[in-house]
Formats: sequence, structure tokens, C-alpha cells
Amino acid sequence: MITDQITRPTLIIDLEKVNKNLDRMLERANNHRVKLVPHFKTHQSKQVGEIYRSKGIESITVSSVKMAEYFAENGWRDITIAFPVNILEVKALNAMIRKEIKLTVLLNHLESVEMLNNSLDGKIDAFIEIDAGYGRSGVLHSDVFQVQEIALAVKDSGNLNLKGLYSHPGDSYGCNSVEEIQSLWADAKEKVISLKEQVFSRDEDVIIRMGDTPGCSVVEDFRGIDEIGPGNFIFYDLVMNYLDVCDESDIAVALAAPVVFKSKERLEIIIHGGAVHLSKDHLYDAHEHKFFGEIVVFTEEGWSPIIKGAKLKSVSQEHGILTVSQEIFDQIELGDVVGVLPIHSCLTANLMKEYLTLEGQKMEHLEKVF
Amino acid sequence: MITDQITRPTLIIDLEKVNKNLDRMLERANNHRVKLVPHFKTHQSKQVGEIYRSKGIESITVSSVKMAEYFAENGWRDITIAFPVNILEVKALNAMIRKEIKLTVLLNHLESVEMLNNSLDGKIDAFIEIDAGYGRSGVLHSDVFQVQEIALAVKDSGNLNLKGLYSHPGDSYGCNSVEEIQSLWADAKEKVISLKEQVFSRDEDVIIRMGDTPGCSVVEDFRGIDEIGPGNFIFYDLVMNYLDVCDESDIAVALAAPVVFKSKERLEIIIHGGAVHLSKDHLYDAHEHKFFGEIVVFTEEGWSPIIKGAKLKSVSQEHGILTVSQEIFDQIELGDVVGVLPIHSCLTANLMKEYLTLEGQKMEHLEKVF
Repeated sequence: MITDQITRPTLIIDLEKVNKNLDRMLERANNHRVKLVPHFKTHQSKQVGEIYRSKGIESITVSSVKMAEYFAENGWRDITIAFPVNILEVKALNAMIRKEIKLTVLLNHLESVEMLNNSLDGKIDAFIEIDAGYGRSGVLHSDVFQVQEIALAVKDSGNLNLKGLYSHPGDSYGCNSVEEIQSLWADAKEKVISLKEQVFSRDEDVIIRMGDTPGCSVVEDFRGIDEIGPGNFIFYDLVMNYLDVCDESDIAVALAAPVVFKSKERLEIIIHGGAVHLSKDHLYDAHEHKFFGEIVVFTEEGWSPIIKGAKLKSVSQEHGILTVSQEIFDQIELGDVVGVLPIHSCLTANLMKEYLTLEGQKMEHLEKVF
Repeated sequence: MITDQITRPTLIIDLEKVNKNLDRMLERANNHRVKLVPHFKTHQSKQVGEIYRSKGIESITVSSVKMAEYFAENGWRDITIAFPVNILEVKALNAMIRKEIKLTVLLNHLESVEMLNNSLDGKIDAFIEIDAGYGRSGVLHSDVFQVQEIALAVKDSGNLNLKGLYSHPGDSYGCNSVEEIQSLWADAKEKVISLKEQVFSRDEDVIIRMGDTPGCSVVEDFRGIDEIGPGNFIFYDLVMNYLDVCDESDIAVALAAPVVFKSKERLEIIIHGGAVHLSKDHLYDAHEHKFFGEIVVFTEEGWSPIIKGAKLKSVSQEHGILTVSQEIFDQIELGDVVGVLPIHSCLTANLMKEYLTLEGQKMEHLEKVF
């Protein structure tokens, strides 16, 4: 069993689940005739990247210039940096352009177009980022004039090529049902399509890309969309499971955490697995109590379904406190290694900075090496 | 100015503040005749460690075996691992013992004593960890029998030497005033002292160590305590400032974050500085709104006091969203670098994995190198 070799907190990855999650998303993309340009911010691993490559993926999305540099060094030639372009990082963009990486950036401001165009040493593609209701970054979908201005400036620039409109409907994370996600997505999609029709003529080669795992996992109507860019789906996590976007058995990473203390008075078990391993992201259970992860037991094949009668109720820097039933309490011993399904797998992977497969192979995360 | 060279999120450290914070805690320890055995979990940096060493510190505290290994490799010979001993890590403990590191561990369970004694290759010191009301790890202060049993087992063991009782009154973080911290601490201290008197005779060489930055920063009565082990005080943070345990000007680290987007409709500014830089730890403002950091402006000497009319209201993986007044909005431009004082400096340092001094020198964090 994989946990036989584990002595301290370790992030276990189930590659069979990773493959299934990717196959399912590829099948959805194929069925709906949209191109999958997966976001790599969740795994941030060259080895996980190779799984995508083996299935024909050549274009990827990242969320920072640093992440673009890492994947460029690992053989990826077509990279979208899905974060508002940071003009302070032009030097790093130029270094990648010189290595013939095909970069795509997100533009939000007219000023950025000119500053970028003047300081780039070569050509890059650009999306205009559209805020279709999420309220984070992006030009407001209703601000047709601003989109027109940016589009014109890009067309007039020497170094920027306008690829189209990009929108991340991240408000889908706040939905309460699949139907709500579908309706939010339909609304966001219509806004972006309508904006495209107002700003561009039919014969212009302008595409729309939309992101987010909840939407891409459950939406059935992608008409008008050319590309999708979800990321979290490769591992999924408890947030996605609570949204009903994945089954708990789809969650592809689990923290292996040694048991170091038992309190029989409080029916609590303390594991070495805290905020520096899992993050402080949390959900609320049916009784409105915060929790920071669900508990599983490792098996010969991987790990069990979620254990009823156990919950990670709090974390401090290194400690995690499980509340458990008397039955579970009696079954778990000091020196055991339990599994924790993460609330938010992107943050857990970013903190753990390394994976161990069920077959005992290490896989890197850029935060460990770059 | 230090931010002139910054293009992406960077954790800035003000060494003058670090020195002042350490001097103040050393002075308190000297005045109250307790030994300061500082916790290194906040900075986790060999260079910051050298500042302590230059002021005479030789004994330190860490919160994991990994952290002990890192500081052992960097010349520290007397290390307390202030986390319930994990019997799975005995091999790593033995490796340090062979290098003649003087290790101290925390014991909570009778079983651990025997398991540890049988598998150790040499001698280590041990505290019995006491839960004086916090409710995390440790034998309950009221469980005199259990403490007696562990103490006897340690005395009978060949490899363990009983150092005394250790208690971390971490519930001080939940207090609402200095008076409340002082009263909570007095209560916890009395419980541990009374336990010591019940279990040990007067002529036994048994000490008491208590931790936590809030208590060690404001308590005036340390009688009965031999050693203190605070950690966060070296940087402090907004949690400590809200507890009135430090002044905001004592906070010694600030995240430098580039401005990448401005929304004039919402008076919001987006920075490259999110959950993977600051953590998701948060506080609540006077209107019960969550926030994830306070904003400062970098200057020639360091950074300004907290800017009124600006707040980091939310974070996602890479994005941070500031809500600002119209006046602040007009002053901050795309491509500026703003400062964010962290809610919880331990987690921010752990995520950033490196420091840049105001003089432009890099300082490492073990998570980057180990």
C-alpha cells in the first residue's frame, strides 16, 4: 500500500482518475465541437502535462508569466496567460517570444495595448477579457465602446494580433445547483456573443473562449463558443463535489497525513496536515459548521469513499483536527496515515509542491523546482 | 526604491523592524527572567535565524521534523520540535541524533514513550505537552494521572530525558483585548504550575515552557515559567495588530504586488497577489466584511502606514481585489506596485518561500530550498 512508505504529509495522486477526468472533458469538447485549451494552474506539473500531450493537447492556459516560463521550458509552444497582462513583465514575455513560444495575453485596458505594443520584441496574440457578470477582471460586457477601442488599437498595433474575446464566468463557483450553473453560463455566453456581434463583422476571424470547470463540466449548450479553458477538472475537489459538478470518486488527489494525537475526551484526532498543506479554504456542512476536508482511508487500489462520522473541523499551521464518531475513533491509531480530500485542490497542490503516484513515483510541481 | 526592481509578487522584509521586534522580546524575557527559545516556524529562514544567533540565541523551536532538519543543516544544535511526536519519523530523528543535534520532542501519549524509546538510536529530551484550555493537542491539565504515567515511563526509559511541561495557549488568538490575553494566560499558567506541583517533587529538575506571541508580548507576570517560545513576534501581522499585541508599524513583512486592472465602475483595483501569495486567512472589518490584507505604499525607507480608504476585499488563486476610495483609485496606476500587510505572516512567508530585503538582498525560506 502506498502509505506504507509515508512518514510525513504527502499529496497522493491517482493517475487513473486524472486520465478519466481528462478523457471525459475531451469527450465533452469533441461532442460539442469546441476546442479544449486546458488551464494548467491546478496541477502545475510537467509530468501531468505530458498526460494531456499524449491525448493530443498542444495549446494550454496558465495563470501567471512564471507558470508560462515553466511550461515553455518543458516543451509547450502555445500558451495563453489568462491573467490581466502585467506590463512590468514585458521582459519575461520577450524572452519567451525570442524562444518562439506562441503567447496569448489578456487585455483589459486601452493603455496596456500601447505600452505593450511599444515594448514587445515580437508578435503575440491577445484576447480582450470580458466581464460577463463575475465582477473580477475584464472589460464590462456592456461597455461596447471600450471593447471597440481596444480592438481597434490592437488592429493598429504592429505586435499584437487580436484572437477574440475571453471570459471566465467564475461566479459559477457560487451556484447552488447544476441548473443554476447552466443558467448562469447561458446568460454569460449570450452576453459575450452579443458583444462580439456588436463589435465585429461576421467575416472577421474572432473567436470566443470561456473557462471555468463548473460550467465546462455540466453545460450542454456551447453554441457560439469556440474554445473552453477549464483547469480544476483534472483533479476536481470538494467544492466541485458540493456543486454536484463531479462525483466524490472523481477527486484525484488526497493528502496522506500521519495521526499524531488522539483526544478521547473530545473524540478528536490530530493529524500532521494543516494550513501549510491543505490551505485554509473551507466549506460549511449541513449544520453550518466549517470544515477543511473530508476523510478517506487508503487501500491497496487507492482510497476509500468519504468516511461518514469524520470531518476535518479545523486547521492551524501544521495541525489538522478531525472530529470523529466513537467507532472511527477506536479504529484509528497513532502512527496511522489517513487521507484528506481537499476543499480546493489548486491551493493544496500549490502548497504541497509535489505528488506521489499510487505506484510510488514522484511528480513535480513548479513551485518545488522553478 | 525597492519596488523599482519588482515585476511580480515579492515578499519584502524590513530587517530594522525584525531586529526591533527581536530586541523587544529579548528585553521582555530578560526583564522577566525567562529564557527565550524562539519558534522559527514564522520565518523558516537561515538568514533570519542568523539575526537571532547574533543576539545570543542558541536554542530554538520548530513545528516539524522537516524544519528541524533544515535548521540542523544550518548550524543549529539545540532544537525543540513543538509538534506531537510522529513515530513514523523516528528514522529522521535518529539521523539528527547521529549528527549530535540536541533534540527535544513533545509527548502526549503513554504509547509514544515506549515506541519512541525502543526505536531511538540515542538520547533525546522530551516535554510532556499540556492542554491548559486551548483544546488542540496535549494531555488535559486536569488529567494528573496521565501526566504521572508518562513522566514515570520517560524516567524508566533509556533514551528519553524528561525536561518538563510544555503548553501552547493558542486560544489567546481568539481574545478581544490585551486584558483578556493576560487573564487567559494567567489562568493557563496557574493550571500548568499546579499540575507540575502535583506530579513532581520540588527537588526535581523540571521546567515549564509556554509559547504564543500574544501572551509573550503583553503578559507581565511570568512567575513560575522558565522558558517562553513565541514565534510570530519576529514579523507580527494584522491578526496581532487587531489583537493590540503589536503596532501596525511593527509588521516586518509586506507583499509587493503589481497593479494589473482597474474598474472605475466598482472602484476596484486588481493586483497580482492572491491566495497563492497571501493565503486565504482573513479578518473582519468594523462592518463585518471579510478582508484579506491592508494596503501600504512603498517609500524610499520602507513602506507607509496603512492607507485609509483601501482594503484587500477578496482573493482568488492569483488575483487580489482591492476596494478603494475615488481618491486612492485616481492615485494608483496600472503597473504600480502596492504593498499588502498580511493577515497571517507565517502562512504568507510559507507561500512566498523567499524574502527580499529593503536593501535588495534575497533571503531564503526553507520551502524554496529544502
